[in-house]
Amino acid sequence: MKLTSIGTVHSSYKTKKEAPKQGKYANETATIEIFPEYVEGLKDVSDLEHIVVLYWQDRSDRSVLSTKTPFSDKVYGVFATRSPNRPNPIALCVGKVISVQNNKLEVTGLDALDESAVLDIKVYSSLLDTDKSVK
Amino acid sequence: MKLTSIGTVHSSYKTKKEAPKQGKYANETATIEIFPEYVEGLKDVSDLEHIVVLYWQDRSDRSVLSTKTPFSDKVYGVFATRSPNRPNPIALCVGKVISVQNNKLEVTGLDALDESAVLDIKVYSSLLDTDKSVK
Repeated sequence: MKLTSIGTVHSSYKTKKEAPKQGKYANETATIEIFPEYVEGLKDVSDLEHIVVLYWQDRSDRSVLSTKTPFSDKVYGVFATRSPNRPNPIALCVGKVISVQNNKLEVTGLDALDESAVLDIKVYSSLLDTDKSVK
Repeated sequence: MKLTSIGTVHSSYKTKKEAPKQGKYANETATIEIFPEYVEGLKDVSDLEHIVVLYWQDRSDRSVLSTKTPFSDKVYGVFATRSPNRPNPIALCVGKVISVQNNKLEVTGLDALDESAVLDIKVYSSLLDTDKSVK
């Protein structure tokens, strides 16, 4: 299973230390630059309010299976956390679309480090992506 | 960017025709079997109510950039849809944890075809994964 980079994130977060703990806490706008060969897929994204962005956390440790979170000293299994360190470091952010111009998409809600590879963009759906029974 | 399969989905959906249009519409329970070398990462998942499951849609067409949806005749850019056909066919489902026993996780809310490769499991967070401003 080989991934293809469909674009690049341009963000003001140059180091892990600068990046917010989650996309939700990002207070900067990021620009997603889609490569010319994938621009056709961007059609209609400008009509969306929110999108799901999947990107590759290339500066992660893929060997980690147990980890602490920023919130306590407890050690969790990685699959019970949102740690970027995990076997397949695919980050998931729900972002707000600010603008789409040609192959450039301006979004909020992204915690991606500058130059991260973009893997996928999907329409966000409050029907599909939330569960009202979650406390 | 090479993905590693962390496990396999065992589901009653053997063909695309049998599978629901989205995980939300699945009325069958699926079993995720995690490979022994990744079981350590499953610790604490039994304490979760909901998880995000990323899996690989191996029976997709990765060359598709424009597509119709099941809901209309309009042709959309794939990044404005949830079509499994897209450059990186990473499926995203919000599932409910029914049980975790050793390396087997029983979940609802998965539209995966039988034998799909599991890429990642993350805790679902209504804070991170929803946007209350979405209509």
